[in-house]
Amino acid sequence: MIEIIVIGYGNVGSHLIEVLLSNTSINLKQVYNRSIEKIEHLLSKCPITNSFDEILEADVYIIAVSDDEISTVSKALKIDNKLVVHTSGSVDMNILNSNRKGVFYPLQTFTKNKSIDFSNIPLCIEANNDSDLILLEKLASKISNNSFILDSCQRKKMHLAAVFVNNFANHLYHIGYTICEENTVPFEILHPLMEETLNKIKGIPPLDSQTGPAKRNDQKTITLQLGQLSEAQQKIYMSLTNSIINTYKNHG
Amino acid sequence: MIEIIVIGYGNVGSHLIEVLLSNTSINLKQVYNRSIEKIEHLLSKCPITNSFDEILEADVYIIAVSDDEISTVSKALKIDNKLVVHTSGSVDMNILNSNRKGVFYPLQTFTKNKSIDFSNIPLCIEANNDSDLILLEKLASKISNNSFILDSCQRKKMHLAAVFVNNFANHLYHIGYTICEENTVPFEILHPLMEETLNKIKGIPPLDSQTGPAKRNDQKTITLQLGQLSEAQQKIYMSLTNSIINTYKNHG
Ligand SMILES: NC(=O)c1ccc[n+]([C@@H]2O[C@H](COP(=O)([O-])OP(=O)(O)OC[C@H]3O[C@@H](n4cnc5c(N)ncnc54)[C@H](OP(=O)(O)O)[C@@H]3O)[C@@H](O)[C@H]2O)c1
Ligand SMILES: NC(=O)c1ccc[n+]([C@@H]2O[C@H](COP(=O)([O-])OP(=O)(O)OC[C@H]3O[C@@H](n4cnc5c(N)ncnc54)[C@H](OP(=O)(O)O)[C@@H]3O)[C@@H](O)[C@H]2O)c1
Repeated sequence: MIEIIVIGYGNVGSHLIEVLLSNTSINLKQVYNRSIEKIEHLLSKCPITNSFDEILEADVYIIAVSDDEISTVSKALKIDNKLVVHTSGSVDMNILNSNRKGVFYPLQTFTKNKSIDFSNIPLCIEANNDSDLILLEKLASKISNNSFILDSCQRKKMHLAAVFVNNFANHLYHIGYTICEENTVPFEILHPLMEETLNKIKGIPPLDSQTGPAKRNDQKTITLQLGQLSEAQQKIYMSLTNSIINTYKNHG
Repeated sequence: MIEIIVIGYGNVGSHLIEVLLSNTSINLKQVYNRSIEKIEHLLSKCPITNSFDEILEADVYIIAVSDDEISTVSKALKIDNKLVVHTSGSVDMNILNSNRKGVFYPLQTFTKNKSIDFSNIPLCIEANNDSDLILLEKLASKISNNSFILDSCQRKKMHLAAVFVNNFANHLYHIGYTICEENTVPFEILHPLMEETLNKIKGIPPLDSQTGPAKRNDQKTITLQLGQLSEAQQKIYMSLTNSIINTYKNHG
Protein backbone atom coordinates (compact mmCIF):
# COMPACT_ATOMS: atom_id res chain seq x y z
CA MET A 1 0.00 0.00 0.00
CA ILE A 2 1.51 3.36 -1.06
CA GLU A 3 1.85 5.77 1.85
CA ILE A 4 1.23 9.39 0.97
CA ILE A 5 1.53 12.68 2.80
CA VAL A 6 -0.09 15.75 1.26
CA ILE A 7 1.25 19.23 2.08
CA GLY A 8 -1.29 21.97 1.41
CA TYR A 9 -5.06 22.09 1.50
CA GLY A 10 -5.87 24.56 -1.28
CA ASN A 11 -7.82 23.90 -4.49
CA VAL A 12 -5.59 21.01 -5.55
CA GLY A 13 -4.68 19.62 -2.13
CA SER A 14 -8.28 19.39 -0.98
CA HIS A 15 -9.44 17.50 -4.09
CA LEU A 16 -6.41 15.23 -4.03
CA ILE A 17 -7.00 14.38 -0.39
CA GLU A 18 -10.63 13.59 -1.11
CA VAL A 19 -9.73 11.10 -3.83
CA LEU A 20 -6.85 9.58 -1.85
CA LEU A 21 -9.07 9.05 1.18
CA SER A 22 -11.67 7.30 -0.93
CA ASN A 23 -9.10 4.86 -2.34
CA THR A 24 -8.65 1.71 -0.29
CA SER A 25 -5.29 0.82 -1.83
CA ILE A 26 -3.68 4.07 -0.75
CA ASN A 27 -2.74 5.04 2.77
CA LEU A 28 -3.09 8.79 3.26
CA LYS A 29 -0.73 8.92 6.18
CA GLN A 30 -0.94 12.58 7.09
CA VAL A 31 -2.10 15.98 5.88
CA TYR A 32 -0.15 19.17 6.52
CA ASN A 33 -1.59 22.64 6.22
CA ARG A 34 -0.12 25.91 7.45
CA SER A 35 -3.54 27.01 8.73
CA ILE A 36 -4.59 24.06 10.86
CA GLU A 37 -8.22 25.14 11.20
CA LYS A 38 -8.82 24.42 7.52
CA ILE A 39 -8.02 20.73 7.97
CA GLU A 40 -9.40 20.03 11.43
CA HIS A 41 -12.47 18.36 9.88
CA LEU A 42 -10.11 15.70 8.46
CA LEU A 43 -9.01 14.56 11.89
CA SER A 44 -11.45 11.67 12.05
CA LYS A 45 -10.05 10.34 8.76
CA CYS A 46 -6.28 10.84 9.07
CA PRO A 47 -3.56 12.52 11.15
CA ILE A 48 -3.08 16.24 10.53
CA THR A 49 -0.40 18.77 11.43
CA ASN A 50 0.72 22.34 10.84
CA SER A 51 4.31 21.74 11.91
CA PHE A 52 7.07 20.49 9.63
CA ASP A 53 8.75 18.99 12.71
CA GLU A 54 5.86 16.56 13.11
CA ILE A 55 5.87 15.25 9.55
CA LEU A 56 5.75 11.42 9.50
CA GLU A 57 7.49 8.87 7.26
CA ALA A 58 5.86 8.02 3.93
CA ASP A 59 6.64 6.83 0.39
CA VAL A 60 5.56 9.99 -1.42
CA TYR A 61 5.25 13.60 -0.24
CA ILE A 62 2.97 15.70 -2.44
CA ILE A 63 3.56 19.44 -2.11
CA ALA A 64 0.40 21.20 -3.28
CA VAL A 65 1.12 24.78 -2.26
CA SER A 66 1.25 28.02 -4.29
CA ASP A 67 3.97 28.00 -6.98
CA ASP A 68 6.06 30.67 -5.25
CA GLU A 69 6.11 28.72 -1.99
CA ILE A 70 7.10 25.29 -3.30
CA SER A 71 10.81 25.94 -2.81
CA THR A 72 10.39 27.26 0.75
CA VAL A 73 8.12 24.40 1.75
CA SER A 74 10.42 21.84 0.17
CA LYS A 75 13.34 23.17 2.22
CA ALA A 76 11.29 23.23 5.41
CA LEU A 77 10.21 19.62 4.84
CA LYS A 78 13.75 18.31 5.20
CA ILE A 79 12.94 14.99 3.54
CA ASP A 80 15.63 12.90 1.92
CA ASN A 81 15.62 9.42 0.41
CA LYS A 82 11.86 9.67 -0.04
CA LEU A 83 10.08 10.86 -3.14
CA VAL A 84 8.97 14.50 -2.98
CA VAL A 85 6.78 15.88 -5.78
CA HIS A 86 4.98 19.12 -6.50
CA THR A 87 1.74 19.59 -8.43
CA SER A 88 2.59 22.65 -10.51
CA GLY A 89 2.39 23.01 -14.29
CA SER A 90 4.99 25.73 -14.55
CA VAL A 91 7.56 25.13 -11.79
CA ASP A 92 10.73 23.20 -12.61
CA MET A 93 11.15 19.82 -10.92
CA ASN A 94 14.66 20.76 -9.80
CA ILE A 95 13.41 23.43 -7.46
CA LEU A 96 12.65 20.59 -5.04
CA ASN A 97 15.12 20.14 -2.21
CA SER A 98 15.32 16.35 -2.08
CA ASN A 99 17.52 13.81 -3.82
CA ARG A 100 14.42 11.93 -5.05
CA LYS A 101 12.08 14.35 -6.75
CA GLY A 102 9.25 14.45 -9.21
CA VAL A 103 6.13 16.16 -10.46
CA PHE A 104 2.49 15.12 -10.22
CA TYR A 105 0.63 17.77 -12.22
CA PRO A 106 -3.11 17.35 -12.72
CA LEU A 107 -3.95 19.14 -15.98
CA GLN A 108 -7.32 20.41 -14.82
CA THR A 109 -8.90 23.48 -13.27
CA PHE A 110 -9.87 23.07 -9.61
CA THR A 111 -12.11 25.16 -7.43
CA LYS A 112 -12.27 24.27 -3.79
CA ASN A 113 -15.99 23.70 -3.41
CA LYS A 114 -16.76 22.26 -6.83
CA SER A 115 -16.40 18.49 -6.80
CA ILE A 116 -14.69 16.83 -9.72
CA ASP A 117 -14.29 13.32 -11.07
CA PHE A 118 -10.59 12.46 -10.82
CA SER A 119 -10.80 9.33 -12.94
CA ASN A 120 -10.69 11.39 -16.11
CA ILE A 121 -8.06 13.95 -15.16
CA PRO A 122 -4.78 13.82 -17.11
CA LEU A 123 -1.97 13.39 -14.58
CA CYS A 124 1.37 14.61 -15.93
CA ILE A 125 4.20 12.86 -14.14
CA GLU A 126 7.96 13.26 -14.09
CA ALA A 127 10.73 11.97 -11.82
CA ASN A 128 14.50 12.20 -11.67
CA ASN A 129 14.93 8.43 -11.71
CA ASP A 130 13.18 5.47 -13.32
CA SER A 131 12.03 3.66 -10.22
CA ASP A 132 10.32 6.79 -8.92
CA LEU A 133 8.69 7.31 -12.29
CA ILE A 134 7.27 3.80 -11.94
CA LEU A 135 6.12 4.60 -8.41
CA LEU A 136 4.34 7.75 -9.67
CA GLU A 137 2.77 5.82 -12.52
CA LYS A 138 1.44 3.30 -10.05
CA LEU A 139 0.04 6.05 -7.86
CA ALA A 140 -1.47 7.87 -10.85
CA SER A 141 -3.12 4.69 -12.13
CA LYS A 142 -4.92 4.27 -8.82
CA ILE A 143 -6.76 7.58 -9.12
CA SER A 144 -7.00 8.26 -12.87
CA ASN A 145 -7.11 6.38 -16.18
CA ASN A 146 -5.17 9.12 -17.82
CA SER A 147 -1.49 9.50 -16.94
CA PHE A 148 1.20 10.98 -19.16
CA ILE A 149 4.97 11.08 -18.72
CA LEU A 150 6.05 14.62 -19.59
CA ASP A 151 9.40 16.32 -19.01
CA SER A 152 9.49 19.81 -17.44
CA CYS A 153 9.62 21.49 -20.85
CA GLN A 154 6.58 19.64 -22.21
CA ARG A 155 4.70 20.26 -18.97
CA LYS A 156 5.32 24.02 -19.12
CA LYS A 157 4.04 24.03 -22.70
CA MET A 158 0.87 22.22 -21.59
CA HIS A 159 0.44 24.84 -18.90
CA LEU A 160 0.71 27.46 -21.64
CA ALA A 161 -1.80 25.60 -23.85
CA ALA A 162 -4.12 25.49 -20.83
CA VAL A 163 -4.08 29.29 -20.65
CA PHE A 164 -5.50 29.37 -24.18
CA VAL A 165 -8.09 26.61 -23.93
CA ASN A 166 -9.15 27.34 -20.36
CA ASN A 167 -8.43 30.91 -19.20
CA PHE A 168 -8.87 32.57 -22.58
CA ALA A 169 -11.81 30.40 -23.68
CA ASN A 170 -13.48 31.33 -20.40
CA HIS A 171 -13.03 35.01 -21.20
CA LEU A 172 -14.64 34.49 -24.61
CA TYR A 173 -17.54 32.87 -22.77
CA HIS A 174 -17.64 35.97 -20.57
CA ILE A 175 -17.92 38.19 -23.65
CA GLY A 176 -20.75 35.99 -24.93
CA TYR A 177 -22.41 36.31 -21.52
CA THR A 178 -22.08 40.10 -21.61
CA ILE A 179 -23.60 40.34 -25.09
CA CYS A 180 -26.54 38.22 -23.95
CA GLU A 181 -27.04 40.33 -20.83
CA GLU A 182 -26.95 43.60 -22.74
CA ASN A 183 -29.63 42.32 -25.08
CA THR A 184 -31.78 40.60 -22.44
CA VAL A 185 -31.31 37.16 -23.95
CA PRO A 186 -30.66 34.25 -21.55
CA PHE A 187 -27.03 33.03 -21.71
CA GLU A 188 -28.30 29.44 -21.93
CA ILE A 189 -29.12 30.13 -25.58
CA LEU A 190 -25.38 29.83 -26.30
CA HIS A 191 -24.74 26.59 -24.38
CA PRO A 192 -25.58 24.10 -27.15
CA LEU A 193 -23.30 26.00 -29.55
CA MET A 194 -20.42 25.95 -27.07
CA GLU A 195 -20.96 22.23 -26.54
CA GLU A 196 -21.00 21.48 -30.24
CA THR A 197 -17.86 23.60 -30.78
CA LEU A 198 -16.09 21.41 -28.25
CA ASN A 199 -17.66 18.19 -29.55
CA LYS A 200 -16.48 18.81 -33.08
CA ILE A 201 -12.80 19.03 -32.18
CA LYS A 202 -12.94 15.65 -30.49
CA GLY A 203 -13.56 14.13 -33.90
CA ILE A 204 -11.56 16.38 -36.23
CA PRO A 205 -8.62 18.76 -35.68
CA PRO A 206 -9.76 22.33 -34.85
CA LEU A 207 -8.03 23.43 -38.05
CA ASP A 208 -10.74 21.56 -39.98
CA SER A 209 -13.71 22.64 -37.88
CA GLN A 210 -13.10 26.39 -38.19
CA THR A 211 -16.03 28.36 -39.64
CA GLY A 212 -17.16 31.99 -39.56
CA PRO A 213 -16.43 35.36 -41.15
CA ALA A 214 -12.66 35.27 -40.45
CA LYS A 215 -12.25 31.85 -42.05
CA ARG A 216 -14.12 33.13 -45.14
CA ASN A 217 -12.17 36.43 -44.97
CA ASP A 218 -15.61 38.08 -45.19
CA GLN A 219 -14.54 41.72 -44.73
CA LYS A 220 -18.11 43.04 -44.95
CA THR A 221 -19.26 41.06 -41.90
CA ILE A 222 -15.98 41.69 -40.05
CA THR A 223 -16.39 45.46 -40.42
CA LEU A 224 -20.05 45.30 -39.41
CA GLN A 225 -19.28 43.26 -36.30
CA LEU A 226 -16.30 45.38 -35.23
CA GLY A 227 -18.59 48.40 -35.13
CA GLN A 228 -20.71 46.77 -32.42
CA LEU A 229 -17.85 46.11 -29.98
CA SER A 230 -16.08 47.92 -27.16
CA GLU A 231 -12.44 48.86 -27.65
CA ALA A 232 -11.11 45.89 -25.66
CA GLN A 233 -13.43 43.51 -27.51
CA GLN A 234 -12.31 44.97 -30.85
CA LYS A 235 -8.69 44.17 -30.00
CA ILE A 236 -9.61 40.59 -29.18
CA TYR A 237 -11.77 40.34 -32.30
CA MET A 238 -8.97 41.66 -34.55
CA SER A 239 -6.15 39.58 -33.07
CA LEU A 240 -8.16 36.38 -33.47
CA THR A 241 -9.57 37.33 -36.87
CA ASN A 242 -6.11 38.19 -38.26
CA SER A 243 -4.66 34.98 -36.90
CA ILE A 244 -7.49 32.92 -38.45
CA ILE A 245 -7.13 34.70 -41.82
CA ASN A 246 -3.38 34.03 -41.81
CA THR A 247 -3.81 30.42 -40.73
CA TYR A 248 -5.98 29.66 -43.73
CA LYS A 249 -3.92 31.77 -46.11
CA ASN A 250 -1.00 29.47 -45.31
CA HIS A 251 -3.04 26.28 -45.33
CA GLY A 252 -4.75 27.12 -48.65
CA MET B 1 -50.39 19.18 -40.24
CA ILE B 2 -48.01 22.04 -41.09
CA GLU B 3 -46.90 21.97 -44.72
CA ILE B 4 -43.32 23.04 -45.31
CA ILE B 5 -41.16 23.70 -48.34
CA VAL B 6 -37.41 24.01 -47.85
CA ILE B 7 -35.32 26.01 -50.34
CA GLY B 8 -31.62 25.09 -50.24
CA TYR B 9 -29.76 21.91 -49.42
CA GLY B 10 -26.59 23.23 -47.77
CA ASN B 11 -25.39 22.68 -44.21
CA VAL B 12 -28.60 24.01 -42.66
CA GLY B 13 -31.09 22.88 -45.30
CA SER B 14 -29.88 19.27 -45.29
CA HIS B 15 -30.12 18.93 -41.49
CA LEU B 16 -33.46 20.69 -41.38
CA ILE B 17 -34.86 18.39 -44.06
CA GLU B 18 -33.62 15.35 -42.16
CA VAL B 19 -35.44 16.37 -38.99
CA LEU B 20 -38.59 17.47 -40.82
CA LEU B 21 -38.79 14.15 -42.69
CA SER B 22 -38.50 12.23 -39.44
CA ASN B 23 -41.39 14.14 -37.87
CA THR B 24 -44.80 12.59 -38.44
CA SER B 25 -46.73 15.75 -37.60
CA ILE B 26 -45.03 17.78 -40.33
CA ASN B 27 -45.57 17.45 -44.04
CA LEU B 28 -42.37 18.26 -45.93
CA LYS B 29 -44.16 19.08 -49.15
CA GLN B 30 -41.20 19.80 -51.40
CA VAL B 31 -37.46 20.48 -51.44
CA TYR B 32 -35.88 22.97 -53.84
CA ASN B 33 -32.19 23.07 -54.66
CA ARG B 34 -30.43 24.94 -57.44
CA SER B 35 -28.23 21.92 -58.14
CA ILE B 36 -30.79 19.13 -58.51
CA GLU B 37 -28.24 16.29 -58.31
CA LYS B 38 -27.61 17.06 -54.64
CA ILE B 39 -31.22 16.29 -53.72
CA GLU B 40 -32.06 13.45 -56.08
CA HIS B 41 -31.62 10.92 -53.27
CA LEU B 42 -34.60 12.57 -51.52
CA LEU B 43 -36.98 11.71 -54.32
CA SER B 44 -38.32 8.58 -52.63
CA LYS B 45 -39.24 10.67 -49.59
CA CYS B 46 -40.67 13.90 -51.02
CA PRO B 47 -41.07 15.88 -54.25
CA ILE B 48 -38.01 17.85 -55.37
CA THR B 49 -37.37 20.60 -57.89
CA ASN B 50 -34.74 23.02 -59.14
CA SER B 51 -37.21 25.41 -60.75
CA PHE B 52 -38.98 28.23 -58.95
CA ASP B 53 -41.83 27.88 -61.45
CA GLU B 54 -42.62 24.43 -60.05
CA ILE B 55 -42.81 25.44 -56.39
CA LEU B 56 -45.96 24.05 -54.74
CA GLU B 57 -48.34 25.56 -52.16
CA ALA B 58 -47.42 25.27 -48.48
CA ASP B 59 -47.88 26.99 -45.10
CA VAL B 60 -44.23 27.90 -44.57
CA TYR B 61 -41.35 28.39 -47.01
CA ILE B 62 -37.93 28.10 -45.38
CA ILE B 63 -35.14 29.76 -47.37
CA ALA B 64 -31.85 28.17 -46.26
CA VAL B 65 -29.44 29.61 -48.80
CA SER B 66 -26.27 31.68 -48.41
CA ASP B 67 -26.87 35.08 -46.75
CA ASP B 68 -26.06 37.05 -49.88
CA GLU B 69 -28.57 35.06 -51.94
CA ILE B 70 -31.58 35.25 -49.65
CA SER B 71 -32.91 38.40 -51.28
CA THR B 72 -32.52 37.04 -54.84
CA VAL B 73 -34.11 33.73 -53.95
CA SER B 74 -36.96 35.42 -52.10
CA LYS B 75 -37.75 37.52 -55.20
CA ALA B 76 -37.55 34.47 -57.47
CA LEU B 77 -39.95 32.55 -55.21
CA LYS B 78 -42.82 34.94 -55.90
CA ILE B 79 -44.80 33.78 -52.85
CA ASP B 80 -47.41 36.01 -51.27
CA ASN B 81 -49.94 35.40 -48.51
CA LYS B 82 -47.83 32.50 -47.27
CA LEU B 83 -45.19 32.71 -44.59
CA VAL B 84 -41.64 32.98 -45.95
CA VAL B 85 -38.72 32.75 -43.50
CA HIS B 86 -34.95 32.65 -43.76
CA THR B 87 -32.50 30.88 -41.43
CA SER B 88 -29.78 33.50 -41.11
CA GLY B 89 -28.41 35.02 -37.90
CA SER B 90 -27.27 38.26 -39.46
CA VAL B 91 -29.72 39.08 -42.28
CA ASP B 92 -32.63 41.42 -41.59
CA MET B 93 -36.12 39.92 -41.78
CA ASN B 94 -37.29 42.75 -44.03
CA ILE B 95 -35.05 41.66 -46.87
CA LEU B 96 -37.70 39.03 -47.61
CA ASN B 97 -39.98 39.81 -50.52
CA SER B 98 -43.31 38.60 -49.13
CA ASN B 99 -46.05 40.28 -47.12
CA ARG B 100 -45.85 37.55 -44.47
CA LYS B 101 -42.25 37.10 -43.38
CA GLY B 102 -40.19 35.76 -40.54
CA VAL B 103 -36.94 34.22 -39.36
CA PHE B 104 -36.17 30.70 -38.23
CA TYR B 105 -32.54 30.88 -37.10
CA PRO B 106 -30.99 27.78 -35.52
CA LEU B 107 -28.25 29.05 -33.19
CA GLN B 108 -25.88 26.17 -33.87
CA THR B 109 -22.95 25.27 -36.10
CA PHE B 110 -23.79 22.80 -38.86
CA THR B 111 -21.53 20.73 -41.05
CA LYS B 112 -23.16 18.77 -43.83
CA ASN B 113 -21.98 15.29 -42.96
CA LYS B 114 -21.94 15.56 -39.17
CA SER B 115 -25.30 14.53 -37.74
CA ILE B 116 -26.74 16.63 -34.93
CA ASP B 117 -29.53 16.28 -32.40
CA PHE B 118 -32.07 19.01 -33.22
CA SER B 119 -34.06 18.62 -30.03
CA ASN B 120 -31.56 20.75 -28.14
CA ILE B 121 -30.89 23.45 -30.72
CA PRO B 122 -32.05 26.97 -29.80
CA LEU B 123 -34.39 28.15 -32.56
CA CYS B 124 -34.60 31.94 -32.73
CA ILE B 125 -37.86 32.98 -34.30
CA GLU B 126 -39.30 36.26 -35.46
CA ALA B 127 -42.29 37.22 -37.62
CA ASN B 128 -43.92 40.42 -38.82
CA ASN B 129 -47.30 39.50 -37.34
CA ASP B 130 -48.55 37.68 -34.26
CA SER B 131 -50.33 34.79 -35.92
CA ASP B 132 -47.24 33.90 -37.92
CA LEU B 133 -45.14 34.08 -34.77
CA ILE B 134 -47.51 31.54 -33.24
CA LEU B 135 -47.22 29.39 -36.37
CA LEU B 136 -43.41 29.49 -36.13
CA GLU B 137 -43.53 28.67 -32.43
CA LYS B 138 -45.69 25.66 -33.20
CA LEU B 139 -43.28 24.53 -35.90
CA ALA B 140 -40.25 25.12 -33.66
CA SER B 141 -41.81 23.16 -30.79
CA LYS B 142 -42.17 20.13 -33.03
CA ILE B 143 -38.44 19.85 -33.66
CA SER B 144 -36.78 21.42 -30.61
CA ASN B 145 -37.45 22.04 -26.93
CA ASN B 146 -35.63 25.30 -27.13
CA SER B 147 -37.28 28.17 -29.00
CA PHE B 148 -36.72 31.87 -28.37
CA ILE B 149 -38.53 34.90 -29.77
CA LEU B 150 -35.84 37.40 -30.74
CA ASP B 151 -36.12 40.56 -32.80
CA SER B 152 -33.66 41.22 -35.65
CA CYS B 153 -31.40 43.30 -33.42
CA GLN B 154 -31.18 40.65 -30.68
CA ARG B 155 -30.61 37.95 -33.28
CA LYS B 156 -27.70 39.83 -34.86
CA LYS B 157 -26.15 40.23 -31.42
CA MET B 158 -26.46 36.48 -30.82
CA HIS B 159 -24.75 35.91 -34.13
CA LEU B 160 -21.95 38.18 -32.90
CA ALA B 161 -21.75 36.33 -29.58
CA ALA B 162 -21.54 33.09 -31.56
CA VAL B 163 -18.41 34.37 -33.30
CA PHE B 164 -16.75 34.66 -29.90
CA VAL B 165 -17.91 31.41 -28.28
CA ASN B 166 -17.73 29.30 -31.43
CA ASN B 167 -15.36 30.65 -34.10
CA PHE B 168 -12.87 32.26 -31.73
CA ALA B 169 -13.03 29.50 -29.12
CA ASN B 170 -12.30 27.04 -31.93
CA HIS B 171 -9.20 29.02 -32.87
CA LEU B 172 -8.00 28.91 -29.26
CA TYR B 173 -8.47 25.14 -29.44
CA HIS B 174 -6.39 25.22 -32.61
CA ILE B 175 -3.59 27.03 -30.78
CA GLY B 176 -3.76 24.41 -28.01
CA TYR B 177 -3.59 21.72 -30.68
CA THR B 178 -0.54 23.35 -32.26
CA ILE B 179 1.30 23.59 -28.93
CA CYS B 180 0.60 19.90 -28.28
CA GLU B 181 1.79 18.93 -31.74
CA GLU B 182 5.01 20.94 -31.46
CA ASN B 183 5.80 19.20 -28.18
CA THR B 184 4.70 15.71 -29.22
CA VAL B 185 1.96 15.53 -26.60
CA PRO B 186 -1.43 14.08 -27.67
CA PHE B 187 -4.12 16.78 -27.98
CA GLU B 188 -6.49 14.56 -25.97
CA ILE B 189 -4.58 15.62 -22.85
CA LEU B 190 -6.42 18.96 -23.07
CA HIS B 191 -9.94 17.58 -23.58
CA PRO B 192 -10.92 17.17 -19.90
CA LEU B 193 -9.78 20.73 -19.20
CA MET B 194 -11.83 22.12 -22.09
CA GLU B 195 -14.84 20.15 -20.88
CA GLU B 196 -14.52 21.39 -17.33
CA THR B 197 -14.07 24.98 -18.55
CA LEU B 198 -17.41 24.67 -20.30
CA ASN B 199 -19.03 22.78 -17.42
CA LYS B 200 -18.16 25.45 -14.91
CA ILE B 201 -19.95 28.26 -16.73
CA LYS B 202 -23.17 26.26 -16.77
CA GLY B 203 -23.26 26.63 -13.00
CA ILE B 204 -21.72 30.06 -12.41
CA PRO B 205 -21.25 33.12 -14.64
CA PRO B 206 -17.90 33.05 -16.55
CA LEU B 207 -16.96 36.20 -14.66
CA ASP B 208 -16.77 34.09 -11.50
CA SER B 209 -14.99 31.08 -13.01
CA GLN B 210 -12.05 33.02 -14.44
CA THR B 211 -8.63 31.85 -13.24
CA GLY B 212 -5.06 32.11 -14.49
CA PRO B 213 -2.15 34.57 -14.71
CA ALA B 214 -4.18 37.41 -16.26
CA LYS B 215 -6.85 37.22 -13.55
CA ARG B 216 -4.09 37.39 -10.90
CA ASN B 217 -2.28 40.10 -12.91
CA ASP B 218 0.79 37.86 -12.52
CA GLN B 219 3.24 39.83 -14.70
CA LYS B 220 6.10 37.38 -14.12
CA THR B 221 4.19 34.45 -15.67
CA ILE B 222 2.69 36.66 -18.39
CA THR B 223 6.17 37.78 -19.52
CA LEU B 224 7.49 34.22 -19.39
CA GLN B 225 4.60 32.88 -21.46
CA LEU B 226 4.71 35.68 -24.05
CA GLY B 227 8.31 34.76 -24.78
CA GLN B 228 7.23 31.30 -25.92
CA LEU B 229 4.69 32.45 -28.52
CA SER B 230 4.65 33.40 -32.19
CA GLU B 231 3.84 36.99 -33.10
CA ALA B 232 0.19 36.26 -33.96
CA GLN B 233 -0.22 34.25 -30.75
CA GLN B 234 1.34 37.09 -28.74
CA LYS B 235 -1.27 39.51 -30.09
CA ILE B 236 -4.06 37.14 -29.09
CA TYR B 237 -2.44 36.55 -25.70
CA MET B 238 -2.07 40.28 -24.99
CA SER B 239 -5.54 41.32 -26.17
CA LEU B 240 -7.18 38.69 -23.98
CA THR B 241 -4.83 39.24 -21.05
CA ASN B 242 -5.38 43.02 -21.07
CA SER B 243 -9.12 42.56 -21.30
CA ILE B 244 -9.12 40.12 -18.36
CA ILE B 245 -6.92 42.42 -16.27
CA ASN B 246 -9.26 45.35 -16.95
CA THR B 247 -12.38 43.30 -16.30
CA TYR B 248 -11.20 42.45 -12.80
CA LYS B 249 -9.79 45.91 -12.13
CA ASN B 250 -13.32 47.23 -12.61
CA HIS B 251 -14.99 44.40 -10.74
CA GLY B 252 -12.67 44.65 -7.74
N1 LIG C 1 -5.94 25.49 -8.93
C1 LIG C 1 -5.74 24.77 -10.00
O1 LIG C 1 -6.66 24.69 -10.84
C2 LIG C 1 -4.43 24.05 -10.22
C3 LIG C 1 -4.39 23.06 -11.23
C4 LIG C 1 -3.22 22.33 -11.42
C5 LIG C 1 -2.11 22.59 -10.62
N2 LIG C 1 -2.15 23.57 -9.68
C6 LIG C 1 -0.95 23.77 -8.84
O2 LIG C 1 -1.18 23.20 -7.56
C7 LIG C 1 -0.46 23.97 -6.55
C8 LIG C 1 -1.45 24.46 -5.52
O3 LIG C 1 -2.40 25.31 -6.17
P1 LIG C 1 -3.80 25.63 -5.49
O4 LIG C 1 -4.67 26.25 -6.54
O5 LIG C 1 -4.29 24.43 -4.78
O6 LIG C 1 -3.36 26.77 -4.45
P2 LIG C 1 -4.28 27.47 -3.34
O7 LIG C 1 -5.69 27.01 -3.46
O8 LIG C 1 -3.97 28.91 -3.42
O9 LIG C 1 -3.71 26.87 -1.98
C9 LIG C 1 -2.42 27.18 -1.58
C10 LIG C 1 -2.01 26.28 -0.46
O10 LIG C 1 -0.64 26.56 -0.20
C11 LIG C 1 -0.49 26.79 1.19
N3 LIG C 1 0.66 27.68 1.40
C12 LIG C 1 0.90 28.87 0.77
N4 LIG C 1 2.05 29.39 1.21
C13 LIG C 1 2.55 28.52 2.13
C14 LIG C 1 3.71 28.50 2.94
N5 LIG C 1 4.61 29.47 2.87
N6 LIG C 1 3.87 27.46 3.78
C15 LIG C 1 2.98 26.46 3.81
N7 LIG C 1 1.87 26.42 3.08
C16 LIG C 1 1.66 27.44 2.25
C17 LIG C 1 -1.81 27.37 1.62
O11 LIG C 1 -1.96 27.22 3.01
P3 LIG C 1 -3.05 28.09 3.82
O12 LIG C 1 -4.35 27.32 3.69
O13 LIG C 1 -2.52 28.11 5.18
O14 LIG C 1 -3.09 29.45 3.16
C18 LIG C 1 -2.77 26.49 0.84
O15 LIG C 1 -2.95 25.26 1.44
C19 LIG C 1 0.25 25.08 -7.31
O16 LIG C 1 1.56 24.65 -7.61
C20 LIG C 1 -0.56 25.21 -8.59
O17 LIG C 1 0.22 25.71 -9.67
C21 LIG C 1 -3.30 24.30 -9.45
N1 LIG D 1 -23.76 26.68 -41.44
C1 LIG D 1 -24.17 27.03 -40.26
O1 LIG D 1 -23.61 26.58 -39.26
C2 LIG D 1 -25.35 27.95 -40.10
C3 LIG D 1 -25.93 28.09 -38.84
C4 LIG D 1 -27.06 28.89 -38.67
C5 LIG D 1 -27.57 29.59 -39.75
N2 LIG D 1 -26.98 29.49 -40.98
C6 LIG D 1 -27.59 30.24 -42.10
O2 LIG D 1 -28.30 29.33 -42.92
C7 LIG D 1 -28.25 29.77 -44.30
C8 LIG D 1 -27.64 28.68 -45.16
O3 LIG D 1 -26.32 28.44 -44.72
P1 LIG D 1 -25.55 27.09 -45.06
O4 LIG D 1 -24.36 27.01 -44.19
O5 LIG D 1 -26.53 25.97 -45.07
O6 LIG D 1 -25.08 27.43 -46.55
P2 LIG D 1 -24.33 26.43 -47.58
O7 LIG D 1 -24.02 25.15 -46.91
O8 LIG D 1 -23.25 27.24 -48.19
O9 LIG D 1 -25.47 26.16 -48.65
C9 LIG D 1 -25.91 27.18 -49.47
C10 LIG D 1 -27.18 26.76 -50.19
O10 LIG D 1 -27.66 27.91 -50.89
C11 LIG D 1 -27.90 27.53 -52.24
N3 LIG D 1 -27.72 28.72 -53.07
C12 LIG D 1 -26.69 29.60 -53.08
N4 LIG D 1 -26.91 30.57 -53.97
C13 LIG D 1 -28.12 30.32 -54.54
C14 LIG D 1 -28.89 30.96 -55.54
N5 LIG D 1 -28.48 32.11 -56.14
N6 LIG D 1 -30.06 30.40 -55.89
C15 LIG D 1 -30.50 29.28 -55.31
N7 LIG D 1 -29.81 28.62 -54.36
C16 LIG D 1 -28.63 29.15 -53.98
C17 LIG D 1 -26.90 26.45 -52.53
O11 LIG D 1 -27.30 25.70 -53.64
P3 LIG D 1 -26.26 24.75 -54.40
O12 LIG D 1 -26.27 23.44 -53.66
O13 LIG D 1 -26.87 24.64 -55.77
O14 LIG D 1 -24.93 25.45 -54.39
C18 LIG D 1 -26.97 25.66 -51.22
O15 LIG D 1 -28.09 24.82 -51.20
C19 LIG D 1 -27.46 31.06 -44.29
O16 LIG D 1 -28.35 32.14 -44.20
C20 LIG D 1 -26.64 30.96 -43.02
O17 LIG D 1 -26.30 32.22 -42.49
C21 LIG D 1 -25.88 28.69 -41.19
